[in-house]
Amino acid sequence: MKDGRFLSLEGGEGAGKSTQARALAAALGERGVHAIVTREPGGSEGAEAIRALLMQGEAARWSPHTEALLFAAARADHVEKVIRPAIGAGQWVICDRFIDSTRAYQGAAGGVDDAAILALHAFGTRGLLPDRTFLLDLPVAVGAARATQRDGAPADRFAMRGEDFHAAVAAAFDRFAAHDADRFRRIDATQPPEQVTQAMLDMLEDWLP
Amino acid sequence: MKDGRFLSLEGGEGAGKSTQARALAAALGERGVHAIVTREPGGSEGAEAIRALLMQGEAARWSPHTEALLFAAARADHVEKVIRPAIGAGQWVICDRFIDSTRAYQGAAGGVDDAAILALHAFGTRGLLPDRTFLLDLPVAVGAARATQRDGAPADRFAMRGEDFHAAVAAAFDRFAAHDADRFRRIDATQPPEQVTQAMLDMLEDWLP
Repeated sequence: MKDGRFLSLEGGEGAGKSTQARALAAALGERGVHAIVTREPGGSEGAEAIRALLMQGEAARWSPHTEALLFAAARADHVEKVIRPAIGAGQWVICDRFIDSTRAYQGAAGGVDDAAILALHAFGTRGLLPDRTFLLDLPVAVGAARATQRDGAPADRFAMRGEDFHAAVAAAFDRFAAHDADRFRRIDATQPPEQVTQAMLDMLEDWLP
Repeated sequence: MKDGRFLSLEGGEGAGKSTQARALAAALGERGVHAIVTREPGGSEGAEAIRALLMQGEAARWSPHTEALLFAAARADHVEKVIRPAIGAGQWVICDRFIDSTRAYQGAAGGVDDAAILALHAFGTRGLLPDRTFLLDLPVAVGAARATQRDGAPADRFAMRGEDFHAAVAAAFDRFAAHDADRFRRIDATQPPEQVTQAMLDMLEDWLP
């Protein structure tokens, strides 16, 4: 059996990643491709337990270095228990956030060295990277307004950070996409949701049956 | 103010580490040295939450690599929040298990590369090592019998491992002590408890007021 494909969706708060992950899976299903939707941090039983430690509590609960280790542990479990088995069984996997979020949030915005984050990722997952990463592009202020409208109060330890933090995250995603044009595709997330989904589908056309 | 000293106690199950950590702190107190007692995994609020994930559940709950990342995260928090501030304030710190336990359990017995574990430690704590590590030496079978007598059923995910696992842990501690004779001191833990404490105290004489 042919291996499945591994797709990740990245972007700041309120960019529509989880909605689009589900919509993309539905659209792929209509094309005869079975895709599972998962998310980070979390996605496996163990990683969801680590997620609770990461998302709850004060913003300063963990240092960026400790956070990076916890994300790496959660991702190692998620890859081992869910992602690799699914890909190996020929399924497609759509992941709401993956390694690039750690590089942006703990790395660029948190001050942790990017090479060190990638070394943790190599240790935990043997360096698994998505086949394709969709960067949902949205001005930081628009994303923050959307997230606030959706969640009311800031939903977790990351959403509660200030505008400078989120601007640093957005700038980091820009750099990653520019440096790895093979893997990344940018999507204008100010478009209506159906158009965002269609744009991703169009960019996967070569891989579809 | 002069920096405090950082001591760790290492050894297999049932070697008496937590009892001896408390006894050594009391003995140091009688010599006018204030020592705090802490333990791993845990020792800070965040690290104790990670400890719960590490110690509970099935033996195979986490892979050795995921475990090593979780231990590194817990240790990073513990060092940042408790150990470095105490040492910096001139206190002595006695830690029941530290980095050498990860090297022995996840490394030698779990199959994770020792250099990789030390790299995680460098990332999380800037490589903090104890000034002195006491290895409480006890035949594996004696330690297992003591631990069973104390706890009844195996107390956690590590105590429940088989004899081969614990023999590999003991052999690893032997190697570490042989390779780093400056930092390690071996203590015969079959002696009566008071003699074990006295032996450690004698080996700290040069540092005492």
